[in-house]
Amino acid sequence: MKVTTIIHPRYVETDQMGVIHHSIYPIWYEVGRVQFCDVMGYPFSKIEKDLSLAVLKVTSVYKAPARFGDQLVLTTQIKSYSKVKIEFEYEIINQEGLIINYGTTEHCWLNNNFKPVNIAKINPTLYNLITKATLE
Amino acid sequence: MKVTTIIHPRYVETDQMGVIHHSIYPIWYEVGRVQFCDVMGYPFSKIEKDLSLAVLKVTSVYKAPARFGDQLVLTTQIKSYSKVKIEFEYEIINQEGLIINYGTTEHCWLNNNFKPVNIAKINPTLYNLITKATLE
Amino acid sequence: MKVTTIIHPRYVETDQMGVIHHSIYPIWYEVGRVQFCDVMGYPFSKIEKDLSLAVLKVTSVYKAPARFGDQLVLTTQIKSYSKVKIEFEYEIINQEGLIINYGTTEHCWLNNNFKPVNIAKINPTLYNLITKATLE
Amino acid sequence: MKVTTIIHPRYVETDQMGVIHHSIYPIWYEVGRVQFCDVMGYPFSKIEKDLSLAVLKVTSVYKAPARFGDQLVLTTQIKSYSKVKIEFEYEIINQEGLIINYGTTEHCWLNNNFKPVNIAKINPTLYNLITKATLE
Repeated sequence: MKVTTIIHPRYVETDQMGVIHHSIYPIWYEVGRVQFCDVMGYPFSKIEKDLSLAVLKVTSVYKAPARFGDQLVLTTQIKSYSKVKIEFEYEIINQEGLIINYGTTEHCWLNNNFKPVNIAKINPTLYNLITKATLE
Repeated sequence: MKVTTIIHPRYVETDQMGVIHHSIYPIWYEVGRVQFCDVMGYPFSKIEKDLSLAVLKVTSVYKAPARFGDQLVLTTQIKSYSKVKIEFEYEIINQEGLIINYGTTEHCWLNNNFKPVNIAKINPTLYNLITKATLE
Repeated sequence: MKVTTIIHPRYVETDQMGVIHHSIYPIWYEVGRVQFCDVMGYPFSKIEKDLSLAVLKVTSVYKAPARFGDQLVLTTQIKSYSKVKIEFEYEIINQEGLIINYGTTEHCWLNNNFKPVNIAKINPTLYNLITKATLE
Repeated sequence: MKVTTIIHPRYVETDQMGVIHHSIYPIWYEVGRVQFCDVMGYPFSKIEKDLSLAVLKVTSVYKAPARFGDQLVLTTQIKSYSKVKIEFEYEIINQEGLIINYGTTEHCWLNNNFKPVNIAKINPTLYNLITKATLE
C-alpha cells in the first residue's frame, strides 16, 4: 500500500538560501507516516494509547530543492517490518514530476515504560494490519 | 531581577526574506523564561513535577530584523504576578545596541489535571521566590 | 471576506505537556494569511516579486489547548488597512466548536531594499484587491 | 579537528512522548557545523558571500532519548571531503556520558546560481582550511 500526501511548503519552512530547509523533510515524512496509519485503519491516537513508535534512524537524500509555492506529493510505504521493528520509505515529487527527495525512517515499538515490545504478541490486530498494508 | 540570555540565531531560523522568521521570537522568550526560573532558584524541571505554566497570551513587537550571524541579548523579567497568574516581559537587543524586539507572555498555573491553581497556597516556596524576583 | 483553512496539528508541534506548543499558532496564522492572499487573487509568490509583507506585531490569545488528532478551522480576515500597513485577525475553532485561540498580526509593506512603501501608489491593483477583500 | 558544542534542549523541542523530537537533531548538527566553520576560520557569513553549502544527504541514528533539562555535548568533525563535496560527522553525548545519537551530513558546494563548483579552484583558501581541519 502506498499512501500519498499533498504537501504545501510553509513560508516559515524556507531559509535564507531561498529554499525549504533540509530539516523540514523528516517532519513531512512524519506527516506521511501519520496519514499512512490513518489509511491503514490504526491511527496514531490509537497507537499511542499503549504504545510508542520510537525513531531509530532517519535517512534523507536531497536531489533538488523545494520552494515556497511548490505543490509536492509525498508517497509513504512500508519498506520492511518484523515483530519488533518497522521501516517506512518516502518519496517526494514536485509539480514538474521531479523526484526531489527520498528517505527512510526506522522505528521500534515501545510500551508506555519505553521498553521494546513484540507487537505480534501484544497487539496482533495492529501486526496484521501492517502485514496487510505491506503486501497490498 | 533581570536575567539576560545570549541568543545566536540559528540558520534554520532564517526565512527566504533573509531574516529571522517572526515565529522564532516566542521560542527565544521561552528560552529566556526557562533561564529566569533557573536563576530564580526554581527550574522548570522542578515546576513540572506538579505544575504547568500554561501560556494565556503572547505579544511580540518587531522593530528591526534579526539576522543569522547576529549576537542578540535577550532580557527577561517579571512584569506582574498574582496568586494564579504571572506575566513576563522581554527585550531583545542586537550587537549594535538596537532594541529589535520586545514582548510579553501571560501565564496561569495549572495542576497536573490542567486545572488552575493558587500557587500561594499550593506552593508558597515558589510564590515567595516569584515575589522576591519581582522586587529585586 | 473571511477565508477558512483546515489545520491538522502535526505530531512535531506537540510538546511534553501533551498539547500543541504556543509558538506554533503564529505559524498557522501565516498559513491562513498565505491562503487569504491566494483567495484574494494576489498570491505571496506575486507579492514577493517586488514587495515584502514584514511583520510589525503579533498577538495571540490561548483559550483552550489544541492537541494532535484535532481538526481545527482557522478563519483569517483583514482587520484594518491603510496605504502602508495591513492588520489581519485570526480565530481558531476546534472540532467541538470551541474557540481555542484568536490573534492578530500587523504588517507593513516594504520594497526589496526593505524600505516602507505606499502600495496605493506603487501597486494600486493590490491595494484595490485589499479594499475589496475588506469590504466583502 | 573536532569541535564541541554544548546543547541545551529547548522546551519547544520536546514532543508529547516527553522526549526531544527526532527532527531536531539535524538542526543541532547544523549548529555544530556552523561552529565548526567558525573555529576553522571561515564562518558561514563569509562562505555565503559567494557560495552555498547545499545538503545532499542526512543520516541520523538514535540510541537513547534526549530530554528537556539535559546538557548535551555535540562533537562535529569532517568525515571526508573532495574538491566538490564535504561530509561531516556528528556525535551527541548526554550528561551521563552516553552516546545518544550520531549521524552524518553530505554537502556539495554551489555558486550563487546554484551550480556545483570546484572550491579548490574557486576558493583555494577555503579548500586549504578544510584540508588542514581534516588532518588536525
